[in-house]
Amino acid sequence: MGKTEIRTVGKVSFDVPASEQKNLHNRWHPDIPFAGSIKDGETVKIECLDWTGGQIGNNDSADDIRNVDLTKVHYLTGPFEVEGAQPGDVLLVEIMDVQPFQDQPWGFTGIFDRANGGGFLDEIYPSAAKAIWDFEGIFCSSRHVPHVKFAGLIHPGILGCAPSAEVLATWNQREAELIAANRLADRDVALPPLITNTHAGSASPDVAEKVAREGARTIPGRPEHGGNCDIKNLSRGSKVYLPVHVPGAKFSVGDLHFSQGDGEISFCGAIEMAGIITINFKVIKNGVADLGLKSPIYIPGPVEPQFGPGRHIYFEGFSVDEHGKQHYLDVTVAYRQACLRTIEYLRRFGYSDYQTYLLLSCAPIQGHVAGVVDIPNACCTLGLPMDIFDFDISPAATPAKSLDMGTCAFETGVSEGKVTTGGANSEHSFGGGLTYKQ
Amino acid sequence: MGKTEIRTVGKVSFDVPASEQKNLHNRWHPDIPFAGSIKDGETVKIECLDWTGGQIGNNDSADDIRNVDLTKVHYLTGPFEVEGAQPGDVLLVEIMDVQPFQDQPWGFTGIFDRANGGGFLDEIYPSAAKAIWDFEGIFCSSRHVPHVKFAGLIHPGILGCAPSAEVLATWNQREAELIAANRLADRDVALPPLITNTHAGSASPDVAEKVAREGARTIPGRPEHGGNCDIKNLSRGSKVYLPVHVPGAKFSVGDLHFSQGDGEISFCGAIEMAGIITINFKVIKNGVADLGLKSPIYIPGPVEPQFGPGRHIYFEGFSVDEHGKQHYLDVTVAYRQACLRTIEYLRRFGYSDYQTYLLLSCAPIQGHVAGVVDIPNACCTLGLPMDIFDFDISPAATPAKSLDMGTCAFETGVSEGKVTTGGANSEHSFGGGLTYKQ
Amino acid sequence: MGKTEIRTVGKVSFDVPASEQKNLHNRWHPDIPFAGSIKDGETVKIECLDWTGGQIGNNDSADDIRNVDLTKVHYLTGPFEVEGAQPGDVLLVEIMDVQPFQDQPWGFTGIFDRANGGGFLDEIYPSAAKAIWDFEGIFCSSRHVPHVKFAGLIHPGILGCAPSAEVLATWNQREAELIAANRLADRDVALPPLITNTHAGSASPDVAEKVAREGARTIPGRPEHGGNCDIKNLSRGSKVYLPVHVPGAKFSVGDLHFSQGDGEISFCGAIEMAGIITINFKVIKNGVADLGLKSPIYIPGPVEPQFGPGRHIYFEGFSVDEHGKQHYLDVTVAYRQACLRTIEYLRRFGYSDYQTYLLLSCAPIQGHVAGVVDIPNACCTLGLPMDIFDFDISPAATPAKSLDMGTCAFETGVSEGKVTTGGANSEHSFGGGLTYKQ
Amino acid sequence: MGKTEIRTVGKVSFDVPASEQKNLHNRWHPDIPFAGSIKDGETVKIECLDWTGGQIGNNDSADDIRNVDLTKVHYLTGPFEVEGAQPGDVLLVEIMDVQPFQDQPWGFTGIFDRANGGGFLDEIYPSAAKAIWDFEGIFCSSRHVPHVKFAGLIHPGILGCAPSAEVLATWNQREAELIAANRLADRDVALPPLITNTHAGSASPDVAEKVAREGARTIPGRPEHGGNCDIKNLSRGSKVYLPVHVPGAKFSVGDLHFSQGDGEISFCGAIEMAGIITINFKVIKNGVADLGLKSPIYIPGPVEPQFGPGRHIYFEGFSVDEHGKQHYLDVTVAYRQACLRTIEYLRRFGYSDYQTYLLLSCAPIQGHVAGVVDIPNACCTLGLPMDIFDFDISPAATPAKSLDMGTCAFETGVSEGKVTTGGANSEHSFGGGLTYKQ
Repeated sequence: MGKTEIRTVGKVSFDVPASEQKNLHNRWHPDIPFAGSIKDGETVKIECLDWTGGQIGNNDSADDIRNVDLTKVHYLTGPFEVEGAQPGDVLLVEIMDVQPFQDQPWGFTGIFDRANGGGFLDEIYPSAAKAIWDFEGIFCSSRHVPHVKFAGLIHPGILGCAPSAEVLATWNQREAELIAANRLADRDVALPPLITNTHAGSASPDVAEKVAREGARTIPGRPEHGGNCDIKNLSRGSKVYLPVHVPGAKFSVGDLHFSQGDGEISFCGAIEMAGIITINFKVIKNGVADLGLKSPIYIPGPVEPQFGPGRHIYFEGFSVDEHGKQHYLDVTVAYRQACLRTIEYLRRFGYSDYQTYLLLSCAPIQGHVAGVVDIPNACCTLGLPMDIFDFDISPAATPAKSLDMGTCAFETGVSEGKVTTGGANSEHSFGGGLTYKQ
Repeated sequence: MGKTEIRTVGKVSFDVPASEQKNLHNRWHPDIPFAGSIKDGETVKIECLDWTGGQIGNNDSADDIRNVDLTKVHYLTGPFEVEGAQPGDVLLVEIMDVQPFQDQPWGFTGIFDRANGGGFLDEIYPSAAKAIWDFEGIFCSSRHVPHVKFAGLIHPGILGCAPSAEVLATWNQREAELIAANRLADRDVALPPLITNTHAGSASPDVAEKVAREGARTIPGRPEHGGNCDIKNLSRGSKVYLPVHVPGAKFSVGDLHFSQGDGEISFCGAIEMAGIITINFKVIKNGVADLGLKSPIYIPGPVEPQFGPGRHIYFEGFSVDEHGKQHYLDVTVAYRQACLRTIEYLRRFGYSDYQTYLLLSCAPIQGHVAGVVDIPNACCTLGLPMDIFDFDISPAATPAKSLDMGTCAFETGVSEGKVTTGGANSEHSFGGGLTYKQ
Repeated sequence: MGKTEIRTVGKVSFDVPASEQKNLHNRWHPDIPFAGSIKDGETVKIECLDWTGGQIGNNDSADDIRNVDLTKVHYLTGPFEVEGAQPGDVLLVEIMDVQPFQDQPWGFTGIFDRANGGGFLDEIYPSAAKAIWDFEGIFCSSRHVPHVKFAGLIHPGILGCAPSAEVLATWNQREAELIAANRLADRDVALPPLITNTHAGSASPDVAEKVAREGARTIPGRPEHGGNCDIKNLSRGSKVYLPVHVPGAKFSVGDLHFSQGDGEISFCGAIEMAGIITINFKVIKNGVADLGLKSPIYIPGPVEPQFGPGRHIYFEGFSVDEHGKQHYLDVTVAYRQACLRTIEYLRRFGYSDYQTYLLLSCAPIQGHVAGVVDIPNACCTLGLPMDIFDFDISPAATPAKSLDMGTCAFETGVSEGKVTTGGANSEHSFGGGLTYKQ
Repeated sequence: MGKTEIRTVGKVSFDVPASEQKNLHNRWHPDIPFAGSIKDGETVKIECLDWTGGQIGNNDSADDIRNVDLTKVHYLTGPFEVEGAQPGDVLLVEIMDVQPFQDQPWGFTGIFDRANGGGFLDEIYPSAAKAIWDFEGIFCSSRHVPHVKFAGLIHPGILGCAPSAEVLATWNQREAELIAANRLADRDVALPPLITNTHAGSASPDVAEKVAREGARTIPGRPEHGGNCDIKNLSRGSKVYLPVHVPGAKFSVGDLHFSQGDGEISFCGAIEMAGIITINFKVIKNGVADLGLKSPIYIPGPVEPQFGPGRHIYFEGFSVDEHGKQHYLDVTVAYRQACLRTIEYLRRFGYSDYQTYLLLSCAPIQGHVAGVVDIPNACCTLGLPMDIFDFDISPAATPAKSLDMGTCAFETGVSEGKVTTGGANSEHSFGGGLTYKQ
């Protein structure tokens, strides 16, 4: 009588390469075999590696960030069969808990090198940098961004059901069109299927080869199934409604975040970690039609950190870029400006631009679409919670001279001094979008 | 001994045309004369007309919305001298209260005709429509969107200090460049200065003529001063930090909103009203440099309506448009998709698409930038508070057959039946951006 | 077409004595004539005087507090007929708004003299004192308690329906028994009907005489109808469910508070004011039986000020009084101790005990019953919001020497110096309850 | 480089009787030897048994509750030396996390038999009853109180530093005086030191004998050190300021609760569990004098569950007991009435009184001291969060006939039928306080 321990349906190892673990995979494809089975109504635990599969170390150099192999990511745990789920059903996923491994109480935030991944502000901040975060219970802090501590709004960056063959074909076609239309751009605009380093779980060689050829990359979230949606509030207690596209659902999860800011602006911007997620699964028959569901919806849980509205400083951003160019109702540009305003503001307290860039990526900042109709300017606001700092950052504060802000980790050859010359007043170009190769 | 009534520094009339009231103006220009003077530290009341200056009536036809004269807007009250304010200072504006006039307890939300203003979803919903909202204390409700009631997150859509001549020149140049670059587009991308219907307050004919030629239109918010930022949370109790560009600050305010949703998506999307704003003014000497302030910042007040995170349904939107076209990290497209997902969801309860479009524009919905780095898809979320409805809209709810949702007001010649054929499944084009004239 | 101004069903005058205004009354009795009539479903405005009927002035002396005539209070507006309401029904009262009069933007908090009313801490703080609060929009501040500003959690202290003759008889009997059992106590334990200064509204002389003889005093809230419940969160947007005891309900309201702390500890402890309340009325037929309602219940509105849990300091109080005497699970004693701990804490920042006593009475402090079963100690907590102060009161703060805290208003013959000798370390007795006359 | 796992400073066993584990103890005494040592500034984990030391089973009978041996409780882990702490210092305890053991995902709520412990409502509900709660991540649910699920506001019921000999003597004397004054009462009013079943940790026989003779029972919280304060919001992220009375502080902790309602009304009322608490310790030198600290204070963390104010039903209670007797400003009586009103209200949905009594004890209900000065009636409010139920409990709801509420666990010989005759309408006496033996 009485409840026993919750079953762990997917386990991971820190001693075996991610690419060799049978219940992991790093592409979306309907033919990746089931890694386990879950009953309708069951609550299970699923272990996950960090999204890179362990490429990043707990140290003070960002060389591992600079050199990260993005052909391997993300390592997801799954896909799991949910018994009874059929195409047209909705899988109701309730996130009962997310925790780091008790013996791995740390995570990382990275700024990718502009030449290898980049990020939202990479035209201004092109170098690789890193912050390591230590976890103590619900809180995290970092030797690389001192005088900050906050409770994690812990969540999975990725969760979703496998695409059907039809859905997959749609993805590949429309992203290929975007790539084709931008083939002269100076950066990748999307990532096509890539055989290199594809990991298809326990697939037979034939299936694995097919997955490698066709499988969708895991980087983007996609409307048909969610995937890498990177929603910071999709945290503990959230109920997520996911469309099912294949028999058994083939649910996968990974890319756990101890915390993230709206936008996850540095791309590797959340506090990335390995950990354990506890999920309850329920099948809603015919839910796609009944709910009119084209994309996932979710209802947050009740335990988000609460700072009070009056404990945030909101920075306004408009769709005029830092070169003074006027864009038309471009929320992306407006949010980038709000980020830059925040970076500029925190300079007075001694933080370097890279430190703030890291912080905005992972702290629970609020990114709002304020106005999108007042032509030509979209307006975004970025809310920075004051209470994550252990000193007063309000406009009324007199910056203390005595606080030592140290430095974040950089890639070899980059020093704080050099980087700061790359700030908003420097000569770096920053197009607020694509620039094209000559 | 004791406090007397708070001084009203700017009064408006409902009996005189807005264009004839000396303390109103509808362009931004440094030469518009002061409409009054306020002491550093003083709290005053300022009366405002609705942004159209009274063009919209409390009735059941949207013809006034269709025919609205946008060359006249916005009518702002001011500009006011704040004693001692000089360029380089920051004007700290604390919003002590905003109230409708007691004898005008109503406001309106409009969807502009695509041919006259349009809005965020105008390619799908091109007709003019309207909802009238009745105010009872802190709450509003509408005969045009039944079974909804919510507390106003009441705020000014526009507040800011006048530009200097240099700032004004910058605005006019960069917006002219955008217009020039898009002169073949099928819609206005920005609005240049316009002599017609310019109202320069109490300016002499010579000055008025100059204001008419050079004055910036009030539609867009602009980074240098804020202006029409349309931030729903910049409500009662908020402290706003505004850069000062001219001696005396020349502060103006208007476009009061009883409520607004993030994005104000239908353009005339807030609950627009006439009313009275109570503001405390303080001058922070040299604040622009001390705070590193390029754009306004604000700290919200403590009285925002609280629904609890678990009382919102969040809809996910990605930067794939409804034609299946893949866009590159385009938050604007992603937010538009989140809006469409919400409209589709509420159909099951009997709301027409136009009713929901109106509702999303004015109810306190949360629009978040979730992820902006997972190429090629930006992800936005739109949080719809369940508790503004007087019936259960959760995914678990069984839609009641008995609720009569009535209809919103339409322009002549448009009926509900015709409009619904313009839904997301129709043949209307919806480009998610600009389309160019042949 | 369109909504007109909301009807004001009860008006008051500042120029006529409260005792002469026909739609006011100051006793609970079923025979007081209707002061007006309200439809089922209607929203109306009701004006109210402050609870004393104007006895207290906006000045710097507490002599009016010392001399207040408590035989006159509370002046309530009503009673109003709600059409169709019958005994056994429930009256659903939704508080749409509460506002001070625009030309009376102030209120008062008083500490009654121990010899005339007293309060929760009167054995330690026996003198009369006063703070005047100035209102600016949603905020209040006081020259008598400097460096504090907060948004009002504005509410009526008293609302309820008239008792039936049977209910009234029950009240008079059970309170008479308490008085009889404590006739040697050194203080009033309850107040019996009192002919002096009874005001029975528009009653004829015969009825007025009956009301004077039998009418229940308005000081206590009572379980059968609510009345003077003094619940700080029963504020704007709240829905209150009130039992109906007489035909037409005979609803009355008054004792408006701009703000109050849990417990309203100084008795005249809220920020007392005159003002206007806007209420919607609905009759729920047979609601008393259907809801099993013995006492009122309410559901708060969504607009309470939010400070965040981490922005409160909580003080613990136990049922050991300040003489070291152990009481048995006495929550009253425990809450008194929590109040004293807060007063002691704020001394370090320069506030006098009387200032803090006034502040705890009216600021939105949280008073919780933490534990009531761990014999012999009840535990209460008092949560003090840090953000109502304009300086840092956290335990980590270094008290500034430069803040001038001034003084609150005192009755003649009492100075701050004398009063402070009455603090918790003085020789004053403080029984934590009743002491008996020799 | 990098952080390693957090040190566990105190471990417990489920295989050895609590009374034989050297780092547990069940009395407060300065001479109990240190169970371990913690550095100033260190974060450690401490394991705890449930408060009874394992007397209660995960089953469907409440006989173990009826027979619980209260001479053994509470088993606390400690006392720990905090290096450098001296009398007069304050120990700043930050609760970084509290978790159940992963392989023990359950807890219990009990109603003690009136003859063995009793509780807040024992005169009406005298029988032993029990609910077992299953934990799934942040949520709990119970087969004994169906259709309820909520996130734990997880916390330690007991934490504190050892008393000095002087403080201990004060406790023993004042509680002895209360016992002496009530020696004819029909119930225990306090518990004197008791040799039976005293567990003094690793004390030598001589010391153990002294601890047994003098040691204070752990049941009551006490103002000088906190102890069993049972504060539901003293949860994760809270910072608690504890007075230090002996060198090294001798900090102990235990009585972990997965959740609790304000008042913990059934005495064994929280969801009692074994688990692991993670704490950071800091010593504030001379803090008692600097902070004017007579009792602990605390600042809650940011992660309390948020339901929104409008998602609570508040029940009002006044100090008139259920026999109609009028009490004088007695908050204890008023809170008891608010509890009874809630029990009566939930009957309409099918819950038995005992089920609701259990639920109010452990769910995160809000117990507020509303008014304590309106003679003779104190007013309390009890806020019940609607969102912990999986059906609608609002006053507007029509109770579903189809919900099966089952039953809670009872002691042998008591059935639901018998118990319900003991409800509020029965002949049971309910004195609202002490009654005296003849």
